[in-house]
Amino acid sequence: MTFTRVLTAAVLLPIVVGGVWWGPTWLVAALVGLVALLALYEFFRLGERVGLRGYPRWTAACAAWLIFEQWAAGQVETWRIGGGLNVVRAAGSAIVPLELVFVVFVLGAAAIALGRGRAPEAPGGEVLPAVGISGAGLLFVALPLSYLVRLHGVDRSGPKLLLFVLALVWAGDTLAYFVGRAIGRLPMAPVLSPKKTWEGAAANVIGSFLVAVLFARWLEIETLHLLVVAGLANVAGQVGDLLESAYKRSAGVKDSGALLPGHGGMLDRIDSLIFAGPVVWCYFGMILRGRG
Amino acid sequence: MTFTRVLTAAVLLPIVVGGVWWGPTWLVAALVGLVALLALYEFFRLGERVGLRGYPRWTAACAAWLIFEQWAAGQVETWRIGGGLNVVRAAGSAIVPLELVFVVFVLGAAAIALGRGRAPEAPGGEVLPAVGISGAGLLFVALPLSYLVRLHGVDRSGPKLLLFVLALVWAGDTLAYFVGRAIGRLPMAPVLSPKKTWEGAAANVIGSFLVAVLFARWLEIETLHLLVVAGLANVAGQVGDLLESAYKRSAGVKDSGALLPGHGGMLDRIDSLIFAGPVVWCYFGMILRGRG
Repeated sequence: MTFTRVLTAAVLLPIVVGGVWWGPTWLVAALVGLVALLALYEFFRLGERVGLRGYPRWTAACAAWLIFEQWAAGQVETWRIGGGLNVVRAAGSAIVPLELVFVVFVLGAAAIALGRGRAPEAPGGEVLPAVGISGAGLLFVALPLSYLVRLHGVDRSGPKLLLFVLALVWAGDTLAYFVGRAIGRLPMAPVLSPKKTWEGAAANVIGSFLVAVLFARWLEIETLHLLVVAGLANVAGQVGDLLESAYKRSAGVKDSGALLPGHGGMLDRIDSLIFAGPVVWCYFGMILRGRG
Repeated sequence: MTFTRVLTAAVLLPIVVGGVWWGPTWLVAALVGLVALLALYEFFRLGERVGLRGYPRWTAACAAWLIFEQWAAGQVETWRIGGGLNVVRAAGSAIVPLELVFVVFVLGAAAIALGRGRAPEAPGGEVLPAVGISGAGLLFVALPLSYLVRLHGVDRSGPKLLLFVLALVWAGDTLAYFVGRAIGRLPMAPVLSPKKTWEGAAANVIGSFLVAVLFARWLEIETLHLLVVAGLANVAGQVGDLLESAYKRSAGVKDSGALLPGHGGMLDRIDSLIFAGPVVWCYFGMILRGRG
């Protein structure tokens, strides 16, 4: 089992790292889109196990559009013309605010709800659970993942930033695994995830700190900033990991799927990555704005 | 009953119209915020009736923030400097993209979910229904309503645009009521809303067209544009109305609440307004962009 797990990682890791480093942002967007669709599929499957039937196809279409817009948002040129003023020229007319994707999602979901709710055999068409699980899929799975694309689209330093996010999550998880096994005693969330310990969680944060120190010179960002953002992203990552355990616990299953040999489903594999992306994006967005 | 209904409307109508016309956008934001919180409260009550328990306080806090940001987005000055370039200066540093509100909502909801999901008596903490109904409240109730604030914030013509939205919805609903009673025969959605007829729905659209013609000169917008946007907003409004019927049908209740004498709850009163706002905003946003 552990051998299968390592083998799968050994095959996927170079592909992901190579794609992020050499690939253009549209390729990263395509990969993230594929990951998001698989994760959404598993999320809807979990929902169905507790009787929440949503609109997976419409949600998937809006998720793909969301990721497209995050790609488009990176295709913008900015010139500084002095005096704190920026001139922005959009590279294409395809860029719409992400909020518009949500508005269209809501209107479309309402139309689908009415189409189904008219049926006499299911008056109301289970509309509350349906809009609930569909909205949650878009907000809790697709939206956070889409920030990985936005990060990659940051001009010049984008690929480095995305590799930083991947490295801090993977290093944290790996260190947590070995330290937790070696010296872990205090259970962190015995109900949700019995194997997790506070010692492992602390090692997880330390693993991310190490990555911050290692990446500081390469990223040309102050080490202090990197330590803060790595800590925040790591905690968000662990929250995402536990939240996914709660989904599975709530649905009464052990793995979200069986897609990746030795790793369970896609949602299992990316759970600690999901929330790290938006945290890093928000942090650097604020710093970059502050430096205006 | 009808007398109570008319009396309630006669008291509220001048307050709303006066507030929109003479009031500053922050007052409109406060009113819309109050309406959104009451509507959210009713939405969560409906959800609880089908076993979906969410995080109403956290969702309400994020809804209020969303409405604040829609107010802030209107406090921006734009100068045109020729050649298709715009220089934008934000009036305050409080403006963040709406998407950020969603990201923070997701992270906060995840933290709450873990706090509850750790309890041994409810492993997983019903996390899937909880994030579902909470996300749906933010997306399907608070987000669309917040566009009423954004519309009011459009410089100079904002109050006119918002009165146009209110008038087209109210005129449509009123004409639909009388025409439906007089000549309505073909039921539109017998399961969801037995009293609605196709004749009433057609009269609803015609009522909005009349408002578009009446408002054309005052708004200084081409009548053709107003007819198109009034038609689209009216259909979206009727979709919202039916969707709310589906919520109630799904929850097995007749009214969403008993707040407004003769009108039922807040959600009952604003159901045909909810989706009209974002449609008008998106339409004029596209026109204004096209005219660049």
